[in-house]
Amino acid sequence: MRQLSRALRVNCLPSLRKPFFNAPPWLVYPTKSFSTTPAHHRYQVPKRKKDVPMSKDMTTLKGKPFDRASLESLMRRRMFYTPAFDIYGGVSGLYDYGPPGCALTNNIVDLWRKHFVLKENMLEVDCTMLTPYEVLKTSGHVDKFADWMCKDPKTGEIFRADHLVEEVLESRLKGNKEARGEKVEVEEEDAKKKKKKVKNITAIKLDDVVVTEYEEILAKIDNYNGEELGLLMKKYDIRNPANNSELLPPVAFNLMFQTSIGPSSNLPGYLRPETAQGQFLNFAKLLEFNQQQMPFASASIGKSFRNEISPRAGLLRVREFLMAEIEHFVDPEGGKKHAHFDEIKDVELELLNREVQLAGKTHVATTKIGDAVASGLVDNETLGYFLARVQLFLLKIGVDPKKIRFRQHMANEMAHYATDCWDAELLTSYGWIECVGCADRSAYDLTVHQKKTGAPLVVREPRKEPLKVEEWQCDIEKKKFGPKFKKDGKTVEAAIEALSQDLREKLSLELEKEGKIVIDVPGVGDGKVEVPKELITIEKRTRVENVREYTPNVIEPSFGIGRIVYALCEQSYWTREQDEARGVLSFPPTVAPTKVLIVPLSSHADFKPFVRQLSNKLQEIGISSRVDDSGASIGKRYSRNDELGTPLGITIDFQSVKDNTFTLRDRDSTEQVRAGLDDIAKAISGIVNGAERWSDVAARLPKFEGQEVE
Amino acid sequence: MRQLSRALRVNCLPSLRKPFFNAPPWLVYPTKSFSTTPAHHRYQVPKRKKDVPMSKDMTTLKGKPFDRASLESLMRRRMFYTPAFDIYGGVSGLYDYGPPGCALTNNIVDLWRKHFVLKENMLEVDCTMLTPYEVLKTSGHVDKFADWMCKDPKTGEIFRADHLVEEVLESRLKGNKEARGEKVEVEEEDAKKKKKKVKNITAIKLDDVVVTEYEEILAKIDNYNGEELGLLMKKYDIRNPANNSELLPPVAFNLMFQTSIGPSSNLPGYLRPETAQGQFLNFAKLLEFNQQQMPFASASIGKSFRNEISPRAGLLRVREFLMAEIEHFVDPEGGKKHAHFDEIKDVELELLNREVQLAGKTHVATTKIGDAVASGLVDNETLGYFLARVQLFLLKIGVDPKKIRFRQHMANEMAHYATDCWDAELLTSYGWIECVGCADRSAYDLTVHQKKTGAPLVVREPRKEPLKVEEWQCDIEKKKFGPKFKKDGKTVEAAIEALSQDLREKLSLELEKEGKIVIDVPGVGDGKVEVPKELITIEKRTRVENVREYTPNVIEPSFGIGRIVYALCEQSYWTREQDEARGVLSFPPTVAPTKVLIVPLSSHADFKPFVRQLSNKLQEIGISSRVDDSGASIGKRYSRNDELGTPLGITIDFQSVKDNTFTLRDRDSTEQVRAGLDDIAKAISGIVNGAERWSDVAARLPKFEGQEVE
Repeated sequence: MRQLSRALRVNCLPSLRKPFFNAPPWLVYPTKSFSTTPAHHRYQVPKRKKDVPMSKDMTTLKGKPFDRASLESLMRRRMFYTPAFDIYGGVSGLYDYGPPGCALTNNIVDLWRKHFVLKENMLEVDCTMLTPYEVLKTSGHVDKFADWMCKDPKTGEIFRADHLVEEVLESRLKGNKEARGEKVEVEEEDAKKKKKKVKNITAIKLDDVVVTEYEEILAKIDNYNGEELGLLMKKYDIRNPANNSELLPPVAFNLMFQTSIGPSSNLPGYLRPETAQGQFLNFAKLLEFNQQQMPFASASIGKSFRNEISPRAGLLRVREFLMAEIEHFVDPEGGKKHAHFDEIKDVELELLNREVQLAGKTHVATTKIGDAVASGLVDNETLGYFLARVQLFLLKIGVDPKKIRFRQHMANEMAHYATDCWDAELLTSYGWIECVGCADRSAYDLTVHQKKTGAPLVVREPRKEPLKVEEWQCDIEKKKFGPKFKKDGKTVEAAIEALSQDLREKLSLELEKEGKIVIDVPGVGDGKVEVPKELITIEKRTRVENVREYTPNVIEPSFGIGRIVYALCEQSYWTREQDEARGVLSFPPTVAPTKVLIVPLSSHADFKPFVRQLSNKLQEIGISSRVDDSGASIGKRYSRNDELGTPLGITIDFQSVKDNTFTLRDRDSTEQVRAGLDDIAKAISGIVNGAERWSDVAARLPKFEGQEVE
Repeated sequence: MRQLSRALRVNCLPSLRKPFFNAPPWLVYPTKSFSTTPAHHRYQVPKRKKDVPMSKDMTTLKGKPFDRASLESLMRRRMFYTPAFDIYGGVSGLYDYGPPGCALTNNIVDLWRKHFVLKENMLEVDCTMLTPYEVLKTSGHVDKFADWMCKDPKTGEIFRADHLVEEVLESRLKGNKEARGEKVEVEEEDAKKKKKKVKNITAIKLDDVVVTEYEEILAKIDNYNGEELGLLMKKYDIRNPANNSELLPPVAFNLMFQTSIGPSSNLPGYLRPETAQGQFLNFAKLLEFNQQQMPFASASIGKSFRNEISPRAGLLRVREFLMAEIEHFVDPEGGKKHAHFDEIKDVELELLNREVQLAGKTHVATTKIGDAVASGLVDNETLGYFLARVQLFLLKIGVDPKKIRFRQHMANEMAHYATDCWDAELLTSYGWIECVGCADRSAYDLTVHQKKTGAPLVVREPRKEPLKVEEWQCDIEKKKFGPKFKKDGKTVEAAIEALSQDLREKLSLELEKEGKIVIDVPGVGDGKVEVPKELITIEKRTRVENVREYTPNVIEPSFGIGRIVYALCEQSYWTREQDEARGVLSFPPTVAPTKVLIVPLSSHADFKPFVRQLSNKLQEIGISSRVDDSGASIGKRYSRNDELGTPLGITIDFQSVKDNTFTLRDRDSTEQVRAGLDDIAKAISGIVNGAERWSDVAARLPKFEGQEVE
C-alpha cells in the first residue's frame, strides 16, 4: 500500500488546508513547522465518521447485530490468529496466523495471483526485505516516514502524540456530557479500555466554545504535524493521563525497523516498509525482460514492516504484514489509456469523491467507471481500469458488495507528485478501513532513483516520425581546450553543457561582439571563466531525434492482505437463528480454509475404510478436506466447522456401510443431500470450483432429513 | 533448515574428535576453549571432497561438460535472479528473484504444499519474522549462533576466520606445487577469484611434514572453534593477505540481524534465523486445534535471515532466504512408528552413513528405507518416512535421481540432544550441497521453552491402564505451618516438595527417631530449617496416575528452497548439440515458470485474433502462457524460451489463418505436431498436469516438419 502519500506529500500551506480544516485562531502556523516532518498517516485506522455505524449498530450478513467480541473470541479459539510469542507474554502488533488463518490468506493470495498476475501477464518479482539506507534515503522514507511521539521525562513512558490528544479530548467531551446529564454513547468495550488508560474521565462541564474547538480538532486529528500537536498539548494542558505529569514536546519517530548488514556495522539498513522500492529499482531489467514493450506491470507479494509506536486495533495495525503490490508502468503521454478498459467500463463503483468530502459529507455516488473516467472524476483509464479490477477481485473473494466504497484522496492527503489516488475501503466495526490504495504516482520514484544512481530508468522508443528540435548548440575545440584549462577542463566543459537555451542565445551574440564569453564556473578560479572564440562555437541548428526517451508513470494498486482478511472475516460472520453462540463464517468455497469436513458417525471400525476412501478421492481431485472422528456429537463437530468456515460436510453413517452412500451438508443452509461417492465428489468439485451452487446440487440430488445435525 | 545442529551441539571432547580429525601435536586443547562458542557451520557450502567432480568435470543431462559460467550468465540475462539493489552497487548476499525465478519458486512451493501439507494434513502456520530477544536467548541462538571473525586493526577489514585460514593454506599448498613444478589443478574461475583476494600466491616449497599438516587442517577446517582458529593463525603466521598485517584474535560474531521493537528501544529483537521457533511456541494451541490428537505436524513457509560475515557462492549462501520447515510432533515412547511407513518402505535411497564417513570415505549404499530403519541405520520409522517423502518430492520437481544422496551427520556434528540427522544433498558444481536437513531433535525445544515460560508444552492423555506409583509423600499441616514459618512458609514448603525420594525415605526414619527433621532451605535463616513432626507426615503410599503427561519429540525436515531452486537449475541445464551457446533449462512442466509460449509468425494483423483466442483458451484451463510477438525470428524466439525453460510452444502461421490449426513444439526434442485448437489445448493440459508425456502427444497428433525453428 502506498503508505507514503501523506508522509511524502509536499508540505501543504495553511491556505490550502483551510477549506479542509478551519484552524482555531490560537493555532499559529509558524513557517518552520512546515519544514519539519509531517506526520505519517498511512494505514491508519480511520476515525469513526458520522456515517459509520458503531459496532453495535453493524449488522451481519443475516441482518442481525454484529458482535465484534464474539467474532474475535471465535477467531482466537479456532486459531485463525494468535498473539505472537504468547507464552512469553506477547509483543504488541505481532500476530501469528494459525492453520485456518494461514489457509485463508494463502487462498486469497492464490486468487490474487490468478486475477492479476496470470490474467494480465504481470511480471512477478520477489525482492529482499533488507534494504540499505541509501535506497530509503532516496525514496524519502528515512526523512519522512515517521509518526510523532512524546515522552514522559519522569517515567520514560512514550505516547503517540495524535492518539494522546485524541483520547484526552474525547474523554473530556464525555466528562462534559456526563456533567450535563446527557447520555454518553460509548461502546462498552471501548469504555473499558479507555477507562483503564485515561483515568481522568471526570464529569466536568465545558464551555460551548471549547466543545466546538475540541470537536474541530478531533475531526482533523490526522492533519497536525509535530509542532502543531505540541501547541495543542500546551494550549489544552494535555498531560500523561496516568500521573498528570507534563510531557516533552513531540519528536518524529521513524517507523522503519533499523538493523545493520554485514559484520562491521558500517552498512546501515532497514526492513522495507513496502514492497514497491524493489520493483522500481529493477525497472530497467524488467523492461528488458519484457522485450522493451510498454506498458507493463510488475507485481510483488511479501511481508513489509512498520515499527508502530503503540499498535492498537488488532489485526488492522500490525508491525509485520503481508502486502501485494502492483506497479503498472505507463507512458505519461496519450492520456494513459488502457487496452482492456472496454471490458470493465460498465462496472459500477460506489465513489466518495473529493468534493463531497470537502463539503464535510460522506455521500457515495454509484457510478460506472467508464463515466467516472469520461467526466474526469477518475484521472485516467489505467487508474479506472484498476479500480474496477480491484472491486471485481474483492467481490470474488466474498466481500459484501454493500460494504465496499472507493474514497478519493483529498488534494493535501496525496503525495505532491501524485495525480490522483483512490482507496478501496471496506466497512467493518472499526469504520471504513483502507484495504487497497490505488495511486497514480507519476514518474516520482523512477526519477529520484535515476537522479541518485545515474541508472537510466527510462524507456527509449523509436519515433514514428523523427522529431526536429531547433536549438542552440555549443561546440568545443577539444584540442585547444585541454592545454588552456588543464585540470579544470572537464569542469568548464560541464558548465558549458549545462547552459540554458536562453543563455546560449545571449552568449552567441556576446561571442560575436566581444570575441569571447564569460561564464560562471563555481570552484574554478574566482568562479568566472573566460572562453575565447577559438575554443567555442555557438550556433542555432536543427537536431533530429529518432528516439524518444521518457520516464514512465506508475499506477500503483497496493493491497493490505491482512486487512482484507480481517474485513472479510467480519463481513462473513453471522450466528444461527436458534442460538447466538453458534457462529458461522460464510466464506465462499474458493477461499474457505478447508473445503470439506468428513465426519464418521462414531469411531466404529466399520467407518474407517470409508473415511480413507473419501479422503483419497478428494485429494485426487485436489480438494482439501479434514476428518473429525473425535467423540463429540455430529452437531458439535459441524458447529466447530461452521466456525472454521468449512462450506461442506460429509457424514458417514450406518447407511453408508450398507449402500455406499453419504450425506453432503451445506454450511449456510444446513440442508443435506444423500448420494454415492461419485455424485458427492462431482457436487463438491462443482461447488468448490465455482461451477455450481448449493441450490443446483440440492435440486439434483435427493434431499436427506434423517439425521439431526443441528 | 536446522542450522543449529553444530552450533548447539554439546562441546565435543578432544577424544571424541580424534577419529574424525587427527589433531597435529602443536594444537593444544585447553579446557577453556571448549566452553566458548563453537563455530557455526550450518548451511555451509561443503568443501570439495575427493569424490566430487570439479565443475569442469560435471556433466549436464545430456552428458556434456557443465559450464557454470554460462548457466549463471543465462540466469542473470533471463532475470531468474539479479543482485538486489544493483543500481546502488548491490549488497553482497542479497538477491532479487525476477519473473522466471519467482514463478519457478512459487511452483515449487505450491508442489511442496500439496506434497506435504495437503497430503498429510499438516497444520500450516505463518509466524512473525521479528522475534524478541528472550525467545532466541532460550533457544540458544543468542549465545551460540555465531561465526568467528577477525579484524585487521589497521584497516578495519573483517575476515571470516575459517575462510581466511583455508584460503591462505590452500594458496601456500598451490605455491608449493608450483615450486615443485607440479601441475596446479584449479578451476580457472576459482583461480581468478583467489588471485585477486590472496595476493601472495608465490612459488615457495614447503616441507613434506608441513604439507601433511596443512592438508589435515583443510580436511577439517569446519571443526575448529575460535580459540583453535586463533592458535592456527599464530602457529602458521596467517595474516591479512592484502597488506601482511597481523590480525586480532577471532571473536564470535552472532549471525542474527538485530533490531529493536517499539519506540523506546527497550525491547531488543532479531530477525528469525529459522521458522521453527514460532511453531514450537504455538505447540499447545496447535495440539488443541488438532483436538489433542497425536502425532501431528505443523509446517511453515517463509523467509529467514542470516547476517553472513562474507557471503560467497551466489545463491547458495545468502543473507535472506526462503525456508519450508515441518515440525512433526511424536510420542517418544513406542519407537516413533509412522502410520504410513508401509507406503514408502520400498523407496530406495542413496545413503552415506556415519561409519563410511568416519573411515574417510564417501561411498554411498543404495538402500530401501524399510531396510535402513530395520537395521537401525536410520533411527526410527518417522524419520525414515520423511527421508523417503523428501526424495519423492525432489524427484517430482525434476531433480536428477543420480544427483541426490542422504548424508548422515557425524555424532559430533549433531546437536547434543539430537538422536539422528540426515541431510538430503544435491550434486552441483559447488559439490554436494545440503538442501534439506532431516533431524530428530528429541524434546529439546519444547523443554527449554516450557522451562523458561512455565507454559505446559506437553501432551496429556488418559492412560488405558492407570499407572500405580509407589512413592514417599510428604503432607504438611498447613494451619500450623504458616504461624511457625511466617513469610518463609512458602519457601520451606517448596524445599520439602523438592525433596528426592531417597531423601524422603531417610527423613521418614529421622522423623520417627528424632521427632523432627532438618532440611536445607537456602536463604532462610542459616540455610537449615527444623520441621517438628506436628507439622509434617512422611509416608510411603501408592499413587494412581490416570493421565500420562509427556513432552513430544520433534522430527524436523527443513528445506532451503533457494538452494533447491539453484541446484535444480544446474541439474536441468544443457546446451543444444548444434550450438554450445544455445542453453536449455529442461524443467518438468509442473514447475516450469511459464508453460506455453505463443508465437505468431510475424506481427501481421491477421494473426492477432488467433493470439487472443489461444491466450484466452489457456487462461480458461488455468495454464500460464506468454506471447512473444517481437520482430525476432521464430528460431530466436524459441531459443529465448528454451532458456526460460518453457516446455511448450505454439506457432501461429498462415496455415492457421486458413484452417485454424497450430503447431505445438516440444522444448526438449524440438519436435512439432499440428492440430486444431481443442486438440492442442488437450495435449497441453495433459502434459502440464502430468497425465501424458510428449511422446504420447507425438504419437497421437500428426507430425509437423514444415517450418525451420532451429
